[in-house]
Amino acid sequence: MPEGTLGYHARRMSEPTRSAPLTYAAAGVDIDAQDRALTGVKRLARSTFTAGVLSEIGSFGGLFSLDPDNPQGQVLVASADGVGTKLKVAQMAGVHDTVGEDLVNHCVNDILVCGARPLFFLDYFASGRLDPGVMVSVVEGLARGCRANGCALLGGETAEMPGFYAPGEYDVAGFIVGACRRDRLLRRESVKTGDALVALPSAGLHTNGYSLARRVIFEVLGLGVDSQVAELHATVAEALLAMHRSYLPAVGPLLDRGLVNAAAHITGGGIPDNLPRALPEDLGAEIFLDSWDEPPIFGLLRRAGRIPEADMRRTFNLGVGMILAVGEEHLGEVLEALVPHGPGWAVGCITGESGVRFVRR
Amino acid sequence: MPEGTLGYHARRMSEPTRSAPLTYAAAGVDIDAQDRALTGVKRLARSTFTAGVLSEIGSFGGLFSLDPDNPQGQVLVASADGVGTKLKVAQMAGVHDTVGEDLVNHCVNDILVCGARPLFFLDYFASGRLDPGVMVSVVEGLARGCRANGCALLGGETAEMPGFYAPGEYDVAGFIVGACRRDRLLRRESVKTGDALVALPSAGLHTNGYSLARRVIFEVLGLGVDSQVAELHATVAEALLAMHRSYLPAVGPLLDRGLVNAAAHITGGGIPDNLPRALPEDLGAEIFLDSWDEPPIFGLLRRAGRIPEADMRRTFNLGVGMILAVGEEHLGEVLEALVPHGPGWAVGCITGESGVRFVRR
Repeated sequence: MPEGTLGYHARRMSEPTRSAPLTYAAAGVDIDAQDRALTGVKRLARSTFTAGVLSEIGSFGGLFSLDPDNPQGQVLVASADGVGTKLKVAQMAGVHDTVGEDLVNHCVNDILVCGARPLFFLDYFASGRLDPGVMVSVVEGLARGCRANGCALLGGETAEMPGFYAPGEYDVAGFIVGACRRDRLLRRESVKTGDALVALPSAGLHTNGYSLARRVIFEVLGLGVDSQVAELHATVAEALLAMHRSYLPAVGPLLDRGLVNAAAHITGGGIPDNLPRALPEDLGAEIFLDSWDEPPIFGLLRRAGRIPEADMRRTFNLGVGMILAVGEEHLGEVLEALVPHGPGWAVGCITGESGVRFVRR
Repeated sequence: MPEGTLGYHARRMSEPTRSAPLTYAAAGVDIDAQDRALTGVKRLARSTFTAGVLSEIGSFGGLFSLDPDNPQGQVLVASADGVGTKLKVAQMAGVHDTVGEDLVNHCVNDILVCGARPLFFLDYFASGRLDPGVMVSVVEGLARGCRANGCALLGGETAEMPGFYAPGEYDVAGFIVGACRRDRLLRRESVKTGDALVALPSAGLHTNGYSLARRVIFEVLGLGVDSQVAELHATVAEALLAMHRSYLPAVGPLLDRGLVNAAAHITGGGIPDNLPRALPEDLGAEIFLDSWDEPPIFGLLRRAGRIPEADMRRTFNLGVGMILAVGEEHLGEVLEALVPHGPGWAVGCITGESGVRFVRR
């Protein structure tokens, strides 16, 4: 969620321990403890930094220069991620060929917001006892995601660890490496007051907020994975397993044209925690709440779980999968270019006051 | 264990399901099922390959060229790995600051045998409920390993996944990226009949064979992690948590001097499964059984578990952590250079017949 400095992301998804209303706090997550851990981890990571490391605090990906003296040299951008408890939904539904694509797309987006295109991907697949059919199905999703993003699936590790995973369960992690010319990296310093913010639509929950969502759907509402939900025009499994989108096809051409100042991948922590990672510390953002219609899954979760708005915003993407900061003068051009991909919309603007404010115009 | 083509390693560590004698087969591992899975995975991975991919079948690391047309261009070498059920011993002993170093060193060795030096490392740490102290302790080990190998800890992902991991348990995976000039990659084609094989000593089990070892130590012998074992001059925890060695300090200078034709990291699958990965398909090796004294932990496991020799050889490294193939004319020079690091010894030779034969001279 709230990032993790140095590219260290902490995925906060503890089970809520009380019933309703379901809030982020009621999820029983000790944020202070996590922050203490991240502080320690950050200090330890810094102790290992070599001349090639370019990472700044809060970067979505780790940056490593292959040629530190060359301002136009290649920079490798790397990120590690998991799918979180979306895996539980996949395992309940017996659908294993989509979480791999979720994972690849998540990783692709994390390096895309640094300005990088993917080169290759490796996976780690762990289960108590290997089910070859399930594993191949997971890799089918990984391979599909890799092909779609022009990213080579270069290898992986398959671990059979009895006693660590319950029968039928598995965990999967992904690791991506991409590249970007150093002078083309997206940097938060490029963002200026008055820049327009452009939102790209998400396809659903993507890969965050599943512990809370599962609690609402399966416990509060008592639905099963096969339950048809009229307002979603889909079964629970279809709605919850909707694929994490890759924004590479939409954003890649905008990067080529130099139209993007900075970008934020909206994952755990939502807009309030992820957008500031792409902005200078002294600048902030207004988000126009009336600029989009939330996909219905979020309204369902909000109502059924009686989830306070602040928790909704810090747990879910609410329909916004990525935000680009673009010069106001380029807004029309960017929106036009995004039409075939979504389309995008003007979701806010950069202000001279730090922090994210949700406003109605 | 037996590698995993395309850099896909399958870690086979199922719990034995019967008591004694404890064998690889009795471990209940369905090797056919795993091989079918790996065949499928290999085909899927190939479908994603882009122009940069150089990986050959059975490579210890995945190879990606940043500049495919340049024979002296940089090649990135990447590998993913885990610690396996050595984690269980760490968790039983409450010692969390060594498994990270195990993991880094394992990864460093996997790319070293391709000819590469490490650039950076990322980790994935997953638990049911984050224990900040434990997590920081694990990262301390990762950071120590990274510093020792000149490798930047560039980032990671921390996943809190309730229901996936039992209280007090966690899984950790590592991803490493290194680099090598393309014309300096170690290639199996460089190995010739008559080449000498040089062994580098392991420090113990390293990170393979723990499901079988734990069965013998904790169930057959009924020992605890704190039990003192006279013949090991150590407690069980000390013996089983002995650190996976990094061979970078020993082998790096030999690579610089062009003295190594090929190298094999001896992990799961032992010498019989790992050494052939470094050899041309039509060549094989003789291993001189009387050329070294096994560390006592292996004799203890063999006797107590009544483990047949073939299973010992395919489950454990038996004291040999890495094998280098070197021109016979360089053997003396290589052994002399290794003295401060172990030392190494002449463990065998390359023959014109494929397969690995264990012989007594």
